[in-house]
Amino acid sequence: GDARMGLEYNGDDVQLTSRARVIFTMTGETDTGLAFGASFRGDQIGGANGNTNMNAGTVFISGAFGKLSFGDVGSAARSAVGDLHGVGLTGLGFANEYPFLDRLYETAQAAAAGVDIFDEAALAAFDAPFSYNTAAMYEYSIDALSVYASVGQFNVARDFAIAGDKLTGMNAAIGARYDFGDFGVSAGYEVSRLKYDDGVDSDSLNANHLVVGVDATFEGINVKAIYGRAGGDLGDALKDNSDTSRDQYGISMSASFDAVGVSAFAHRDFFRTTNIGVGASYDLGGGARIVGGVRNENPKGSSSNTTADFGVAFSF
Amino acid sequence: GDARMGLEYNGDDVQLTSRARVIFTMTGETDTGLAFGASFRGDQIGGANGNTNMNAGTVFISGAFGKLSFGDVGSAARSAVGDLHGVGLTGLGFANEYPFLDRLYETAQAAAAGVDIFDEAALAAFDAPFSYNTAAMYEYSIDALSVYASVGQFNVARDFAIAGDKLTGMNAAIGARYDFGDFGVSAGYEVSRLKYDDGVDSDSLNANHLVVGVDATFEGINVKAIYGRAGGDLGDALKDNSDTSRDQYGISMSASFDAVGVSAFAHRDFFRTTNIGVGASYDLGGGARIVGGVRNENPKGSSSNTTADFGVAFSF
Amino acid sequence: GDARMGLEYNGDDVQLTSRARVIFTMTGETDTGLAFGASFRGDQIGGANGNTNMNAGTVFISGAFGKLSFGDVGSAARSAVGDLHGVGLTGLGFANEYPFLDRLYETAQAAAAGVDIFDEAALAAFDAPFSYNTAAMYEYSIDALSVYASVGQFNVARDFAIAGDKLTGMNAAIGARYDFGDFGVSAGYEVSRLKYDDGVDSDSLNANHLVVGVDATFEGINVKAIYGRAGGDLGDALKDNSDTSRDQYGISMSASFDAVGVSAFAHRDFFRTTNIGVGASYDLGGGARIVGGVRNENPKGSSSNTTADFGVAFSF
Repeated sequence: GDARMGLEYNGDDVQLTSRARVIFTMTGETDTGLAFGASFRGDQIGGANGNTNMNAGTVFISGAFGKLSFGDVGSAARSAVGDLHGVGLTGLGFANEYPFLDRLYETAQAAAAGVDIFDEAALAAFDAPFSYNTAAMYEYSIDALSVYASVGQFNVARDFAIAGDKLTGMNAAIGARYDFGDFGVSAGYEVSRLKYDDGVDSDSLNANHLVVGVDATFEGINVKAIYGRAGGDLGDALKDNSDTSRDQYGISMSASFDAVGVSAFAHRDFFRTTNIGVGASYDLGGGARIVGGVRNENPKGSSSNTTADFGVAFSF
Repeated sequence: GDARMGLEYNGDDVQLTSRARVIFTMTGETDTGLAFGASFRGDQIGGANGNTNMNAGTVFISGAFGKLSFGDVGSAARSAVGDLHGVGLTGLGFANEYPFLDRLYETAQAAAAGVDIFDEAALAAFDAPFSYNTAAMYEYSIDALSVYASVGQFNVARDFAIAGDKLTGMNAAIGARYDFGDFGVSAGYEVSRLKYDDGVDSDSLNANHLVVGVDATFEGINVKAIYGRAGGDLGDALKDNSDTSRDQYGISMSASFDAVGVSAFAHRDFFRTTNIGVGASYDLGGGARIVGGVRNENPKGSSSNTTADFGVAFSF
Repeated sequence: GDARMGLEYNGDDVQLTSRARVIFTMTGETDTGLAFGASFRGDQIGGANGNTNMNAGTVFISGAFGKLSFGDVGSAARSAVGDLHGVGLTGLGFANEYPFLDRLYETAQAAAAGVDIFDEAALAAFDAPFSYNTAAMYEYSIDALSVYASVGQFNVARDFAIAGDKLTGMNAAIGARYDFGDFGVSAGYEVSRLKYDDGVDSDSLNANHLVVGVDATFEGINVKAIYGRAGGDLGDALKDNSDTSRDQYGISMSASFDAVGVSAFAHRDFFRTTNIGVGASYDLGGGARIVGGVRNENPKGSSSNTTADFGVAFSF
C-alpha cells in the first residue's frame, strides 16, 4: 500500500491533502510453469470486478510465449513509449502523463475544446468524456527488443435506447522499444474507431496517433523526449481548428544523488497548452520520502496557473 | 481471491471480459470452543457493512447446537435444494441459478412480466426490483440429514414518506436434505409476505414456493433435477396469466475425467423461458483453468438468443 | 476486522442486523527511527483515498517531536476530552458520542433545528449537512500531560458555480489532558469559520465550542462527565432560540467484573434532547462477546423513543 500527507496550493488557496491506499496482488503458477496473477488498488475494487467494463486493475498469464494481460492495461503505444517524468507529492494533475488516445478521451478538456470530432451527433447520446474499458495487451521481449500489441473496447452500450440503433467502438495499438545500452528508442501507433448506425444514417469516426520517444541514462541522470502526431478524423479536426494542433511533444528528466532526487518535465499538448513541472524528493529510508513539486499550466488564450505541493509520502 | 480473462459473445458482438476480486475471510474461536467468523467479497465491502441491510457477505457462529449465520444467507430452501450446475467462464447470466423467491424478486424479468403481484399499488412506491436484506439462517446436521431454517427482511422502508403509512415485509423458509450414499433427496418451502397499511386501506401480498430436488453421483458424474411450484398470491397470478406458469423445473449434470470437466443444464422458469447451457473446462493446475460455455435462452413469444464465452479462470 | 449479528428494536419493529468489516493497517520506520503508518476501514476505502477530501482513515508520522496525523482525525478538542461511554451491539445511534463541532455539522438534526446559523444564505447552495474534510492533528505527551492541536477544512467547493463567488471554511482546535493517577481532567476549545464572498456581498459565520471533562477510575469502575458551551454566531443562535441551549452536558460510566461489563450514559444536547443509555456485555473469549443495550431519546417538544439491541460481536 501507500499513503501520503502534505499541503497543496491550487493557485488560489493552500489546502491539506492526504490519502491512504492498499494494493491487492495475487499470483500463482500452473503445473506447466506458466505464471498468472492479478493486481488492483483497493479503492478500485469495484472497477476491477468489471467484466466487459474492467476499468481498473489487471489480470495476466505469462510464459515462454510472452505475457498476455487483460483489464486496465492502457494501449501498446503507451506501454512502449511511456510517460514523461512526474513531479510532486500528489502528481499535481499528472500533466506529465502523455495524452495517448485512451487518456485523451478521458479528459474533459477534449470534450470542451470545440474539436469537431468530440461533438459528433453519434457521441451526443453518451456521457462525455468516455473512456476505454476492458482491453487486452500482449507483450514479448527478446534481448534488447520489446514488442507490444493491444486491443480494447469503449464504455459504450452495444444497443441504443432507440431500437435498431447501434454504436460500436474499438481501439488497437502496436508498439516497440529497443535498448542500446544507456540509450533507448521507442515508437507506438494507436487507432480508435467509433461507428454509429441507426438503420437510416450511419457515421464513423476514426482517430490515430503516431508517437516516438528517445531516452538516455548517464551519471544517474535519465532524460526523455516524446513526439506525437494525431491523424484520421481526429488529426483533421485538430488541424482545422486554430486553437489546436495535431502535434504534441515533451521532454523530461529525472536524477538521483544519494538520498536526493530531482525531476522536471515540459509538455505542449494538442490543445496548445504548455505544462512545466519541477520536483524534488529526499529519501528518509524505510519507504518514506519528503516530496515537493511545482507545476505551471499555460493554456493558449487564457492566463497561466501555478500549483504546488509538499509533504511526506510513504510506501508499505 | 479469483480472477479471469477471456472473450464473451453476447449474441451480437464479441467483447473482451476480465475481472479480479479478493475475498476476506476472518475466523475465531471462543473459550468454550464455539467457532465464529465472517466472509465477504472485496467488491461487496459496502454491502457487508449493511447492518439491517447486509446484502453481501455472511457472519456465523457454530458449535454443537448447529450453525447460525446472518447476512446474505439466501433462504433455507435454497440452502437445502441448491442450484443446477453452471457453465462457462462468466456464468453466462447464471441461468442455472434456480429462481428461489429471493432471486425472483431481484429479477427485472419479474417486474416486467406483467404478473399482477409485482404491480400492486403497495409496491409502486418502491424501486423495483426489490431484494432481500439481512437474513438469518440456522442449520443442523446429524449423520446423513441436514435441516435448515431461515428468516429475512426486505429492503423496504419501515415508515413511508406519507405519514402514517407503513409497509412491512418478511420471508421465512425451511429445508432439509438426506443423503443415501450416492443418492440424495432435498426439499424446501419458502414464504414471503408484504403488508401495506396507510391507515385507510391495507393490503397484503403473499407468495410461497415449494421445491424438491434429487441428485445422484456415479462414476464421477453428478446429475440433478429440481421441480418448484409457486403458491399464494404469486401462484394465482402466475396461473392466471397465459404467459406464465406456476411451475418451474430443471435438470443438470457435471462430470470430470482427469483434467477435463463438462457440465450442462436445462431449465424452464415461471415465465415459460427455457434456458439450456453446456460448458467444458481443462485444469492447468495451480488454480488455473481454461473454461468455456454456451447458453441458449428461449423466451416464450420472442426469439431465442445464444451467448458464449471462453477464457482462463484463476483462483488464488 | 470485526463482525456482529443480532436483533435491533427501533421503537416500532424488531429487525435483524449484522455486518462484517476489515481494517487495513500499514506501518513502517525511517532510517532515523521515525514511525509512520496509515489505517482505514475497508468499507471506507474510497474516502481514505480522498486527498483534499480524506474523510476516512488516517496517516501519521511520529517521533521525539510528537505525532502528526492527517485525514479523518477529528478535532483536538475531541481527542483531549473524548466521548461518553457507549452502549449496545450497534451503538444505538451513538448518542454517547459527544457533539463536537465536526459532528454537529454532520447531523441532520442541526440542519433541521431552525437555528439561524445553519440557514444562512451562504450555506444554502451546499448540500446540508456539510462535514469536515482532510484535517491535520498534532499531539505531544510529556509524563502525565498530553496536548493536542488540529486544523481542518470543510467539504465546500473553493470556487462557486457562480463566477467570482467564493466560499472558504476552516476549523481549528486545541486540547489538553492531565492524569493525576486514577483521576484525569481535560479541556478543549474549537473554532470554525465559514466565509462567503460573491464580489458584492460577503458574509462570515463563526462558531466556537469550549468543552471540559473529568474522569476517574476506582475498583474497575470508570466514570466521566463532560460539559460544553457554544459561542460565536453559533452560541448566539442557540441562545436566541427558545428550543435550543448554548450548553450541553453528559455523564457516563463503564465497569467490568470478570467477563461481565456494564456501561451507561446520559446526555443533554444543544437541542435540549436528552439521551439515556444502558448496556451490558459478556465476554466469551477469543474476541467474541454477547452484547446488548437500551437507549431512550427524549427530544424537547416531542415524544420519547426507546430503542434496543442484542447480539454477538466478534473481533478478529
